[in-house]
Amino acid sequence: MALVNENFLKLPGSYLFSDIAKKVNTFKVTHPKQDVIRLGIGDVTQPLPPAVIKAMHNAVEEMASKSTFRGYGPEQGYNFLIETIIKNDYASRGISLEPSEVFINDGAKSDTGNIGDILRHDNSVGITDPVYPVYIDSNVMAGRAGDLIDGKWSNLVYIPCLSENNFIPQIPDRRIDMLYLCYPNNPTGTTLTKEELKKWVNYALENDTLILYDAAYEAYIQEPDVPHSIYEIKGAKKVAIEFRSFSKTAGFTGVRCGYTVVPKELNAITLDGEQVSLNKLWNRRQCTKFNGTSYITQRAAEAIYTPEGKEQIKEIINYYMTNAKIMKEGIESTGLKVFGGVNAPYLWVKTPNGMPSWKFFEQLLYEANIVGTPGVGFGPSGEGYIRLTAFGAREDCVEAMRRLKNWIK
Amino acid sequence: MALVNENFLKLPGSYLFSDIAKKVNTFKVTHPKQDVIRLGIGDVTQPLPPAVIKAMHNAVEEMASKSTFRGYGPEQGYNFLIETIIKNDYASRGISLEPSEVFINDGAKSDTGNIGDILRHDNSVGITDPVYPVYIDSNVMAGRAGDLIDGKWSNLVYIPCLSENNFIPQIPDRRIDMLYLCYPNNPTGTTLTKEELKKWVNYALENDTLILYDAAYEAYIQEPDVPHSIYEIKGAKKVAIEFRSFSKTAGFTGVRCGYTVVPKELNAITLDGEQVSLNKLWNRRQCTKFNGTSYITQRAAEAIYTPEGKEQIKEIINYYMTNAKIMKEGIESTGLKVFGGVNAPYLWVKTPNGMPSWKFFEQLLYEANIVGTPGVGFGPSGEGYIRLTAFGAREDCVEAMRRLKNWIK
Repeated sequence: MALVNENFLKLPGSYLFSDIAKKVNTFKVTHPKQDVIRLGIGDVTQPLPPAVIKAMHNAVEEMASKSTFRGYGPEQGYNFLIETIIKNDYASRGISLEPSEVFINDGAKSDTGNIGDILRHDNSVGITDPVYPVYIDSNVMAGRAGDLIDGKWSNLVYIPCLSENNFIPQIPDRRIDMLYLCYPNNPTGTTLTKEELKKWVNYALENDTLILYDAAYEAYIQEPDVPHSIYEIKGAKKVAIEFRSFSKTAGFTGVRCGYTVVPKELNAITLDGEQVSLNKLWNRRQCTKFNGTSYITQRAAEAIYTPEGKEQIKEIINYYMTNAKIMKEGIESTGLKVFGGVNAPYLWVKTPNGMPSWKFFEQLLYEANIVGTPGVGFGPSGEGYIRLTAFGAREDCVEAMRRLKNWIK
Repeated sequence: MALVNENFLKLPGSYLFSDIAKKVNTFKVTHPKQDVIRLGIGDVTQPLPPAVIKAMHNAVEEMASKSTFRGYGPEQGYNFLIETIIKNDYASRGISLEPSEVFINDGAKSDTGNIGDILRHDNSVGITDPVYPVYIDSNVMAGRAGDLIDGKWSNLVYIPCLSENNFIPQIPDRRIDMLYLCYPNNPTGTTLTKEELKKWVNYALENDTLILYDAAYEAYIQEPDVPHSIYEIKGAKKVAIEFRSFSKTAGFTGVRCGYTVVPKELNAITLDGEQVSLNKLWNRRQCTKFNGTSYITQRAAEAIYTPEGKEQIKEIINYYMTNAKIMKEGIESTGLKVFGGVNAPYLWVKTPNGMPSWKFFEQLLYEANIVGTPGVGFGPSGEGYIRLTAFGAREDCVEAMRRLKNWIK
């Protein structure tokens, strides 16, 4: 009989979001008349902007006619989209990239999950804590995480981000081979300034660390000193892969498109000390195990960068960030401590009197009928926090704050 | 510095199709007035059928309005598509499947490439030879293939399919843990009868072999005794994963959608002998490293199964299969031996007098201005063959046959 990859069996059986769904369901069954407001899951609610809709209709029409039909596209994505991305997201910030350094994908989850394919199973891995679970789970599957002991994976280096350190991860005192950074951060909603990110790039340069930089929430940055790309930091092309996504930028969670930048200057090493281009390896991986993203989707993504597209997504992001502002002010007015929500659509709320995340989750659900996400679900340093998201409808955010105030009072 | 997955470095530097592209380009530069007919690459040329176009426009419109907008869908795919697939592709042939046994994807290449994630790196692997390169390359990357010695990977079991055995792979005399079968076959265009496939299912049942069954060309089957699904064979649910694709069925090569069936009866084993459900493992893999296929694409796939959709794709498939018939007859009339082309859009042509594949490729290009794919590019048993595809325009197929006849004469 074929042997299974036993690393999979180390993963805990239950998922955070299915546990939440079960608890919410139990509440709804026992309280059928209560109206629950869901501020838990990070999915968008606003429809696609008109410029994107128009581009998709046009692309669908192209597929209807023999002379404009498109079959297999390049595995790496179409040049029309790659060039548009480079011009708008990078050249405009003084970063020069070659088209062959950008890989279009079907969303950042695939590439942040699959990137480990090109790396050895015994690299050491660092994560900020709390963290997006995909970074951990995909490394568990690859055998890099070790064993789960008291809620922590034995071979992972956890870098705590807490209110005590203002959610700024401290440079570790040891070498790490691979390090995941996500800024603006999911789940805390916090950011690093250029100065702070520079420390990490310098650490990586000094220690030959590969940074896996997830900038999926880049479009939500409002303040000037927050870097939009890690390549704004000198030397970063030598040490970092950057993941971007249109999911939150333009409501593409159901459309599926993002991209990954693998600079040509970026190397990893063989056991014999030979340096190898990760760009070349990733290209080989994608050519073998991926067949490109839908042509229609790529045309949709291109439309985000048109003048109308830019205007329209700005409006959508403003809508969510106004939600975030209303929520932040609402939470603060109750006396609870809240972080994030300024350059990111996530609010990271400290539970009162150090109450455990799940206990606060249940109280919030049963007494204020609001669904959040227990912070501990994102890692041990998330204990004592709950995540709320600003992706809901305005009226729900306002109503949730009204309930919260009444309840805390 | 992070360590690379050194298995990647074992892969040969050049790709079959880029080598071909270079040779064709050289010819075109040196012969600018010659009109080249490309019958090499397996991409479709007919536009999407009207039922699919209509469904996509409708789905795009849904995404434009708040009340019908869809964000993240299930990682496994939407139930509306899964139920439609089960009803039309399986229940209609007496095969019962549960919705949770079907996983919608962005094309069969992703899943045939990624399926190895859930299996150990040291399973033994069998392939029919010649073969679709993704099966081999993805196993090289995972460390299962060993080393490339004289054109063969040391840890793979090659099962030759040649005119001498009528392209029917012989049951090996040893156990294999994982076995790839692709029927109708790419590249030979040949099929197995139910009786022949049954032998493989029985071999798998007796030897606890996992069959990875690629049925991407199922829609091209014309003859009654050719199985459309491996699950038509008794016991197959205990041993086989089946991959299907809409790429060739409905012209989705640029749209990206397919599905994978992982039956709940199917187990693999741990080193300790514990049986583990592969359905559960694959579900975990997909939930961690994939975020579902575009909603619009899934609605497009659903439309293939409407009465109009079925009628329209039948017409397209008839178009390609008429091409295949014209080509088969054309090639036969020159005295060359040709296989396939009856239940598949591929024609597998034996070169005259055992001429090597690449030599025949060059002669065909320079003397008849036709591009094929050298059979040896698909593996050692492909030497002495060339693959032609029936996906071209009718007039090109007719003209190619005219040229071939004149040239051979």
